[in-house]
Order: sequence, then structure tokens, then C-alpha cells
Amino acid sequence: MRAVDLIVKKRNGGELSASEIQFLIGGYTAGSIPDYQISALLMAIYFSGLNFEETAALTWAMLGSGRTLDLSGIGGPFIDKHSTGGVGDKISLLLAPIVAACGVKVPMLCGRGLGHTGGTIDKLESIPGYRTALEEREIRAILNDCGFVFMGQTESIAPADRLLYALRDVTGTVESIPLITASILSKKAAEGSDGFVFDVKAGSGAFMKSEKTAKELARSLVKTARVLGKRAAAVITAMDEPLGRFVGNLVEVRETVSALRGDVSADVAEVTCRLGARMLGLAGKAGSLDEGAAACRSVLESGAAYRLFLKNVAAQGGDPRYLEEPARLKPAPCRVDVVAETDGWVAGVDAFKIGTAAVLLGAGRATKESPLSPRAGIELVKKRGDAVAPGTILCRLFFEEGVDAGEAESLARAAYGFSEAPPARGRLILYEMEAS
Amino acid sequence: MRAVDLIVKKRNGGELSASEIQFLIGGYTAGSIPDYQISALLMAIYFSGLNFEETAALTWAMLGSGRTLDLSGIGGPFIDKHSTGGVGDKISLLLAPIVAACGVKVPMLCGRGLGHTGGTIDKLESIPGYRTALEEREIRAILNDCGFVFMGQTESIAPADRLLYALRDVTGTVESIPLITASILSKKAAEGSDGFVFDVKAGSGAFMKSEKTAKELARSLVKTARVLGKRAAAVITAMDEPLGRFVGNLVEVRETVSALRGDVSADVAEVTCRLGARMLGLAGKAGSLDEGAAACRSVLESGAAYRLFLKNVAAQGGDPRYLEEPARLKPAPCRVDVVAETDGWVAGVDAFKIGTAAVLLGAGRATKESPLSPRAGIELVKKRGDAVAPGTILCRLFFEEGVDAGEAESLARAAYGFSEAPPARGRLILYEMEAS
Repeated sequence: MRAVDLIVKKRNGGELSASEIQFLIGGYTAGSIPDYQISALLMAIYFSGLNFEETAALTWAMLGSGRTLDLSGIGGPFIDKHSTGGVGDKISLLLAPIVAACGVKVPMLCGRGLGHTGGTIDKLESIPGYRTALEEREIRAILNDCGFVFMGQTESIAPADRLLYALRDVTGTVESIPLITASILSKKAAEGSDGFVFDVKAGSGAFMKSEKTAKELARSLVKTARVLGKRAAAVITAMDEPLGRFVGNLVEVRETVSALRGDVSADVAEVTCRLGARMLGLAGKAGSLDEGAAACRSVLESGAAYRLFLKNVAAQGGDPRYLEEPARLKPAPCRVDVVAETDGWVAGVDAFKIGTAAVLLGAGRATKESPLSPRAGIELVKKRGDAVAPGTILCRLFFEEGVDAGEAESLARAAYGFSEAPPARGRLILYEMEAS
Repeated sequence: MRAVDLIVKKRNGGELSASEIQFLIGGYTAGSIPDYQISALLMAIYFSGLNFEETAALTWAMLGSGRTLDLSGIGGPFIDKHSTGGVGDKISLLLAPIVAACGVKVPMLCGRGLGHTGGTIDKLESIPGYRTALEEREIRAILNDCGFVFMGQTESIAPADRLLYALRDVTGTVESIPLITASILSKKAAEGSDGFVFDVKAGSGAFMKSEKTAKELARSLVKTARVLGKRAAAVITAMDEPLGRFVGNLVEVRETVSALRGDVSADVAEVTCRLGARMLGLAGKAGSLDEGAAACRSVLESGAAYRLFLKNVAAQGGDPRYLEEPARLKPAPCRVDVVAETDGWVAGVDAFKIGTAAVLLGAGRATKESPLSPRAGIELVKKRGDAVAPGTILCRLFFEEGVDAGEAESLARAAYGFSEAPPARGRLILYEMEAS
């Protein structure tokens, strides 16, 4: 087998067999196939695509380059959720304890923020002491005790994915549905879950700007997961406006605590319960979506999910007192308020602009290596449908001393659109699919 | 400027500017842009293409990576021919002295055989002493004295082309019309010619199997040459059957000598005079194609071209006695005759099979580094349209002792197709175009 022949085969629209894909990925990981052949292959895949069987074979090959979590001895079912990334997307923080409180184990592999989007690990690390770099025995113990665990990617999980991602990043081959699919699934499959619910974001604040490409990715994720023998569902959710009231790290943890204590934004509750219902459905714990959503609301309102969250924070090294006394979770001290200049209604708050403003304030990373300010962030005092008058505070920026907030302020101001009449209520759940 | 942004631009079907192409090729040649980015770019070009302006800019960038021949002080016009490669294609050997005898200077950069096709340099080197690795002052002197010179590619000519070609070879990006165009033109333009005639072969023995792709390449070569400020024409010629009576190196030189002395195959004469007429046309030395072809036939029949050829052989270090006494040009001593088994007519002789058989006999190279046998080859005693009976010799294989000719013999036999009635005469000149 020669790499160049396989590149030509894919370039000409042929289908690569599982053993051919294993040869390529195994050879690349082992160093026997050079990066210049793999980058040509990636570009050929960008143009010629991969079908679901090929994407599954690629996922297996990437997964097989590393270790898989051993969940034996822990009672299942195990279901995880993956979000393609958004702004103000604190859903994972609520969803894991909610679904765990409903009797489903959630071994959740999380990422850091990238670009204008936030990352669950960055958010959790704003809780003093909280650790996501866990040993396998810790992961097993926490999952067993709390019903869920938040873990970061380790060196041993799908190393081929790290190599491939770094190569895609510099060769113009990031935006490929099958390559994105295999990257997501190779990491998620390493958790050992029985099934996945994919929250595929669509809109200005998402990586997939259009509902059409979001659907393509959703279908690819669900179908490929099925080929891998996993249960899977996908929910396409709107990411035109940030979710909830806060964007940042510590501020989103604080919002999560409030939500788990009963003060939850309607949009966060809707997306969380819909995804939770899907997870319970995949786990066989709910007969219908309505039943699943009701179960999620019930453990949210009863405080059962909150108690599990506190338990998890303690188990992962965090100090639960910070959560129980929210006054301890202080945002960064410097403030700038953006105020309305006219009468009317907020027609929308652009998620991309708000996400980018938050990064500029220090809540995200300009590059993978940049440090971030856990306490920086944005409070969206007004969102779509809210009435405003001259002087109404639209949003509030939090940042550390020494940060120039000028550009962030301009962006945050530009993020707000206004209308003379109340805007129609936007849909949050755009589309759903489940593998049959 | 970042390479990845330019890769994405091309991937998305955008047009690269001349300075962007210069940045990429200059950076690659200098080592500041890694091969894995260039291979992704090449694959993006394979799919998205390059327009004639981009192809010309790529050619300039590749040309600019090396030296250009200085022809100042030598009287022009300078016109060269390039063939995309065929079997039995000794046209360059005849054409250069013929066109030079008509008063046009021909600085001809030649290549070696590749795959099943022969190469002019390999053929010339079968003349004892003949050198094509020449110093620039030798090139100038020979061109001035003989009116033509055969030269090999040197390290200093378009080094970017060598780098890119090696990369394309292992990344599945060889078969791209704009990349083929830039590779050919970057070397040819280094000669300093005023114009080029392209002999684009089409058929089983050509790299372009179909007339359609041959036309695409012809159009790309002619149009891009025009953008580069060169006069250009292309002739698409049939390469279903080998040209002439011999395939190999020394045997083709011997055939060339016979042809220049007046004993020329009809197909070789037709293609040579047509290409010659085009060259004279580009040089402004013929008012019409018929007038140009007549001029070529005239110097062929008068012996003027032959005398120039002898002069060139002496000037390039060869021993002209070998040409004047053809008995000295002995083919390899071992012979196998392939004979007909039935009555009928030869319907065709497959050029690819004959070319491959010649390589197996030692007349060509399996890989770039393989040595070859100058004296090995094939005599096509019968070709399309010839009548045969059981026992008629179809072709004769020549090879050195120790060579197993079994596979070559089978291939040569399989190359012959037969019909019960005389086949229609095939067309040699399939299509012609000239830049307007």
C-alpha cells in the first residue's frame, strides 16, 4: 500500500477502505507517512468528502491511536453531550448534574474556549481549586459518586486528532464536515459512552453560520456515531444571540449556580431541558421528549441537580463555599456600562460580536497559548425583546485593571440591534434528528 | 501574508495575485513555507484550478527561482518546440536541424524518458561522446554556429519546478493542467525563446489519453505562453501508434539519420513538417502553413538539415562518423521476432504497450534512477494498414544479453490488433490552435 495511491483514489472520488484509512492514520501517527502527504489527503477529503463508513473508519483509526476510558464496574447507562461551541453556552454545567440526577451517568470530555467561543474547562477553572486534569481512577471514582465528571483531553486520548488538528489548522482544511466529525467523535468515543447528544449551534456566534451546514454536520455526527455502534441524536440550536445573561468564565459559573438554585433564564432552561430530554431518551430513561424534559425540570427545581453539582465541585478539588456564597464569586473590578441612546426594543444581540468583545476583555484566548482572566466577562442586561429608552443599561463589561476596554465596548455596542416595535420571538430549537 | 490564508482563498475558488503566488513559491524555495502547506495548496489547485493569469504568475515565480539563458548578441528569431511525450517520438531530432536550416534559431531544452515514453536526451546520448550538460557559453556558441542546440535541464534552471515536481509526484497532484503548464513553461521560458510550438500528444501512448484533455492542456499552454508575452501555437497529434519504425534510443537516432538522408516514414515526415511549419510561422519565416511545410521538406530533401545535424553532433562532442556510417550504430545483439499467426491487416499497434515493452527491454527507465541500455529497442516492421500472413514478422525486439525478453515479447504481441479488411487511415494531426 502506498500513501500516494490512496491520495489519488480519494482525489478521484473513490472510497477508502477501513484498512487503507488505518494505514494512513497509523502511518502518520508513527511518523512513517510524512505530513505533506497527509495535508494533500486532507485537502482531497475537503473536496471529495468521506461517506459515513469512511468517517467512522477515520474515527476508529484516530481513537485507536490512544487510550479509551474503562468504565467497567460502573453502572450505566453512559450518555454525553457535545456542543459545537457558542457564546454564553453554559449548558454543559447545568446539564451534566441534571441528567445525572435523573439516573444517567455523564462522563463529559470538555474543551477550552477557542476563538470567540467559551470553553467548559475555562469556566470550571474559575472555581478556585477545580481540576479537570484527572487520573483515570479519579475519573471513575467521581463518575461513580457524582454521576458525572468533567474531564479535559489528555495526551493519551486520540493523539492522532491533535496531530491532524494542528495540520488542518495551517493547511486550510479545518472546514470539512467529515474531518470535524471524526475529530469530535474520536475524542468523545474515548470516554466509553453508550450514546451522544450533539448540540449543533447555528448562527452568527457559531462556527456553522447557516442552518444548512449545521444540519449537514448534525447528520454526519449522528450517522457516523451510529456506524460506530453508538446511540446518537442531534439538536440544532440557535446561536444568533448569546445564551443566558452572562458571557465569560466566573460569571457563567455564577449564573449556573443561580440557575441550579431556581433562577434560570428561559433560553438556558429550554435548551438544557431539550438536550436533557434527548439524553434521557437515548438512555431509555424517558418514554417521550416531554417526559424527559419534565424530569429535567423536576431535578432542577427540587435542588437535586444543585446538590450533585456541589458534590462534584468538591470531588474535583473545588471549594463549594464559593458556590454556596455567590458573593465570593466576584467578577473583575473594572466596569463599563453600555447604554441605549434611543427608545425602542432590542431586536437582537449579535453573539459573534459579544463573544469577540468578551475575548478582548480577557475572558477568552486570542491564541491557544494566551492566558485568560477568569473574572472578566459581560452581563447582558437587555436581550432581544426587551424595551429600552435613552440611558437604559444594555450590557455591562467586567475586566481587570490595565485592560483597555475601548474596542470591546465598541463591539458590544455594535452587537445591539434595535427596532421600533417588539421583535418576534426567535426559535431556539431549530431542528432535531435521531439515528433510526 | 500567511500561507494558510492563501490556501483557503484558492480552496474557495478565489484568484491568487501574482505577488501572492510569488510569496508562496519564493517562500517554498527559500524554505520558509513548509512542504505540507504547499502540498495542500497543490491539491487545492488540482480542484479549484488556476486561470491563465495565475498560471503565468506561477510560471514566472518558478522561472524566477533560477537563471534564464542570455541569448543577446545571437541573431534570432528563437523558436522552440515541446512535446508532451510519446513513443517513437524522434521528431525533435529531425525538427531542430530542419527549422534551423530554414533560418530560425532553436535553443531546445530536452528531457529524459519517463514512464513508457522516450526522451530526447537519452536518444542523443546513445551517440558516443554526445553531451547535453553544457556550459552557457557552449550553448551560445553551438546555437550560433549550428542554429540549434540540445541541452539538458541544469540545477540553475527553475529549481522551484524540481521541488514542486518531486512533491506533486508523492502527493497525487501530478494530473493538473495548470500545474503541468507551469512546469513545462517555467523550463522552456528559461531558454529565452520568442515563441513555442507545443506538440500535445493524445492517445494510448500519451499522458493525455483523450483528445479532450489534450485540447485543455494545449489551450492552457498557448494562452499562458501568451500572457507571458511569448508567441505560441499547439498541434494535437495522434499517439495511438508509435511514430516511425523504431522505438528506443540508438535505433531512433539511426532512423533519424536515415530520415535526414531522405528515407523518412510518412508519419514522421507529416508531423515534423507540420510542427516545422508552425515554428516558421511563429518566426515570421512563412506566410502560410503550406509554405512552411514546403520549406521544411526542401531542407530535408536537399540534405541541408542533415549537414546541420552532423555539425551539431560534432559541436556537442559526438562522433559524426557514427552517423555517416550507420553500420557503426549497431542495435543490441539479442533479437526476438514477433510473428503474425493469421492472415489479415494490422488494425493498429498500441503505443503504450510498445513503449512499455521497450522499457522492459532496457530502452527506458522503470524509475528516474534506473540505468538504461542505449542499444535496446523495437523495430516495428509492420504498422497499421500493413497486410500480414502467418509467419510475417510484425516487430523485432533488440536487447542486451542477460535480459529476459519474455514479458516484453508478450506485450509487443498484445500491442498488435488485426482486422479482416484494410483499416481506415488514421489522422495524425488532430487539432491545431494558435494564440490570437
